[in-house]
Amino acid sequence: MPDADPVPTPSLRNAEDFRWAGVELRPYKQENSAPFKAISRQVLFSDPLLAGELRYFEIEPGGHSTLERHEHMHAVMILRGAGRVLVGAAIHDVKPHDLITVPPWTWHQFRATQREKLGFLCLVNAERDRPQLPTAEELNALRAHPKVARFLGGEP
Amino acid sequence: MPDADPVPTPSLRNAEDFRWAGVELRPYKQENSAPFKAISRQVLFSDPLLAGELRYFEIEPGGHSTLERHEHMHAVMILRGAGRVLVGAAIHDVKPHDLITVPPWTWHQFRATQREKLGFLCLVNAERDRPQLPTAEELNALRAHPKVARFLGGEP
Repeated sequence: MPDADPVPTPSLRNAEDFRWAGVELRPYKQENSAPFKAISRQVLFSDPLLAGELRYFEIEPGGHSTLERHEHMHAVMILRGAGRVLVGAAIHDVKPHDLITVPPWTWHQFRATQREKLGFLCLVNAERDRPQLPTAEELNALRAHPKVARFLGGEP
Repeated sequence: MPDADPVPTPSLRNAEDFRWAGVELRPYKQENSAPFKAISRQVLFSDPLLAGELRYFEIEPGGHSTLERHEHMHAVMILRGAGRVLVGAAIHDVKPHDLITVPPWTWHQFRATQREKLGFLCLVNAERDRPQLPTAEELNALRAHPKVARFLGGEP
């Protein structure tokens, strides 16, 4: 059967407290597909005419995204709250409107603080590869940096 | 002569009051290339590895972007202030985090209010066509809608 005609996106979609009209609040990933905690996903722009996709992720206090890497790049703008971000072996404190660039094949993880949510926009190519999780060996290599070990352990 | 090696983007670029570390504040367009008023441009993400570009535009109170159309799509998120947006024959009041979609070949213009700036993110394909300005005939057709005529005249 042919696909149904796609419904065009309305020219205005109002925001209210980091939810958007007509945008579904989705789980970050399928449960048990990878380690993560307390994070949701809203796809704000995804269209056959757009080469990029813009998503909004929100991490609850104490939550975090998956530690992963992939060939595609992440272009991130923090929108709300406070947290810390691992990019390679660097750890950054982030606040609203800060920009984070994750180059190809770079380990990365986003963590909210214990007190505040962390919400951020993430721009990716519409066509992209699947993320890789670290092997036990790669995780050990990352943890060899004491600061990274503390970050991954969730210490503030 | 070969190009110099590109300088990699740092993994963190801090924001301060809608300016970003290492990001140049540019004119919106070349002067006299098209009608516009009181608007600046910052390119936040533009990279050979990214199929999209993310730009931040800021319009001073009373200012506006060019009335134009093109084949490529705009995916916009309002970041600060208040204003109104023309998309086709629709006029929308906008506030922070609202999403605007401009489909291909659709006339559009962004206007700040008389009292407040309007700042917004705009995602576009890195490869895109050049905007077209309306002919006198097209402008008359747009102005045939009384609401659009008032909008283009800058009436609040």
